[in-house]
Amino acid sequence: MNGSDRVVGVLGRGVVDADAPQVLADDLGLTRGDGCFDALRVVKGAGRVRLDHEDAHLARFARSAALLDMDPIDLPAWRALIDETVAAWPGTREGFCKVIWTRGPEYAPGDHVGLVLVGRTPPSGVPLRVATLTTGRPSDAFADAPWLLGGVKTLSYGVNVAAKREAARRGADDVLFVSADGYLLEGPTSALIVARDGVLSTTPVEGTGILSSVTAAVIAAQAAEHGLEFRHRLMIPEELHVADGAWLVSAIRGVCPIIEVDGAGINLHAQATETLTRWAGFAD
Amino acid sequence: MNGSDRVVGVLGRGVVDADAPQVLADDLGLTRGDGCFDALRVVKGAGRVRLDHEDAHLARFARSAALLDMDPIDLPAWRALIDETVAAWPGTREGFCKVIWTRGPEYAPGDHVGLVLVGRTPPSGVPLRVATLTTGRPSDAFADAPWLLGGVKTLSYGVNVAAKREAARRGADDVLFVSADGYLLEGPTSALIVARDGVLSTTPVEGTGILSSVTAAVIAAQAAEHGLEFRHRLMIPEELHVADGAWLVSAIRGVCPIIEVDGAGINLHAQATETLTRWAGFAD
Repeated sequence: MNGSDRVVGVLGRGVVDADAPQVLADDLGLTRGDGCFDALRVVKGAGRVRLDHEDAHLARFARSAALLDMDPIDLPAWRALIDETVAAWPGTREGFCKVIWTRGPEYAPGDHVGLVLVGRTPPSGVPLRVATLTTGRPSDAFADAPWLLGGVKTLSYGVNVAAKREAARRGADDVLFVSADGYLLEGPTSALIVARDGVLSTTPVEGTGILSSVTAAVIAAQAAEHGLEFRHRLMIPEELHVADGAWLVSAIRGVCPIIEVDGAGINLHAQATETLTRWAGFAD
Repeated sequence: MNGSDRVVGVLGRGVVDADAPQVLADDLGLTRGDGCFDALRVVKGAGRVRLDHEDAHLARFARSAALLDMDPIDLPAWRALIDETVAAWPGTREGFCKVIWTRGPEYAPGDHVGLVLVGRTPPSGVPLRVATLTTGRPSDAFADAPWLLGGVKTLSYGVNVAAKREAARRGADDVLFVSADGYLLEGPTSALIVARDGVLSTTPVEGTGILSSVTAAVIAAQAAEHGLEFRHRLMIPEELHVADGAWLVSAIRGVCPIIEVDGAGINLHAQATETLTRWAGFAD
């Protein structure tokens, strides 16, 4: 995921030099991880630009900001900056567009800082060997504890990246978080979908603290249109071994089939993978 | 804690313009809270500068970096940058010195970024009304889960600042975190010390995920010197109501007596407060 073709936009200023620093040393987004972000997929080519599910991502971004008691997201201003930054991106085909909202400097007067970052993405739909790692919290820990920031896409992702490093140490590609009481939750940057006996299931958002996945919602809507049952329910790791297929899905990496859980192979459902990939908009 | 007299140093560059941005938009310290920090007290005046317990703070900083699999802390380089930045600080008397180590840019080649931030501190030793808030994790959640980053002073402090906002909503000044199984842990930026029947106690570090407090260790060493028992043990909230005194202690804010827990007053031990304040080096 290296490449210097990234483009940076700053709210209120427009596209800036991507190699020039944009954030003060005492910005609370940096010093405390106090801020939020979201990420959406850019598909570019032949003079055409597509921003997948922009409304849903910006709505989630605005919700994250509200749950952090931050200044509200000015949607028209963000849309304009996203358009400008994506237009300036020299890349073709697949890209990501990340929006970042920080609380601004701690020790000097200053507003929140809004950033847009556009760049290349790695290939989507890559099969994954996952390691299950506990979050240390039971599946209902977030129900009455809003300060734990369940469902908020914050800049405090330190545990998420540390978990990915732990997975790599275990020879796995990604993480599947499990609650302290033994339920499957989500990946550090993706949602879980499991297929069994013609039913699709994903982790419920309520109480679990997991992020409401735009991609899982898109798949759920497609399932409803195609008359397929889509459930929100708590699942245990053992279910993965009797499932017809399981996937980690995200706006940037698409629909990634899980092929191994803690070193044990699980069933890869090629046809369902193809269907979900198409439903998620990654088949074009 | 507002004031534009803050000074910024950058590792490898020295003191820079504090009002100029220093961090790239895609620095992982910003976008993921992927990095660590530490903070120590600066006492300045009459041509004399004191950096309280600099060795202990830098040792903890180095440990945080190691636990994040980051490049090691180059102690002589950091010491030199701290000295240079503190020397450039126009403030007199009390200040803080924050050291920050980020993983650097994600999408362009680049090294870790080291920052030193020096500025004014609020008054120390302020009495506190605290709200107890759950972390959602049992007191042993961190024992076998290093990816949860227990004891690591990371840049992912989003929950810590959200908890402080929740405390303010409840009319309290600060937070006392409690584990899901009901034990007192620490404040978002401070350690807990409780006095009862001539014994001082603090939360044990092992398994609880709390930060190893430099100030609590300084007080423990002083207690040993004065023949006073100092225990590391798990305590329950009810103990605060039968204690002779309880304090949140930190390198920057000193020894703050807790005067109220969730709206109920607790005993303020004026003499012990004075002793602990002197031991922590805040009585001069």
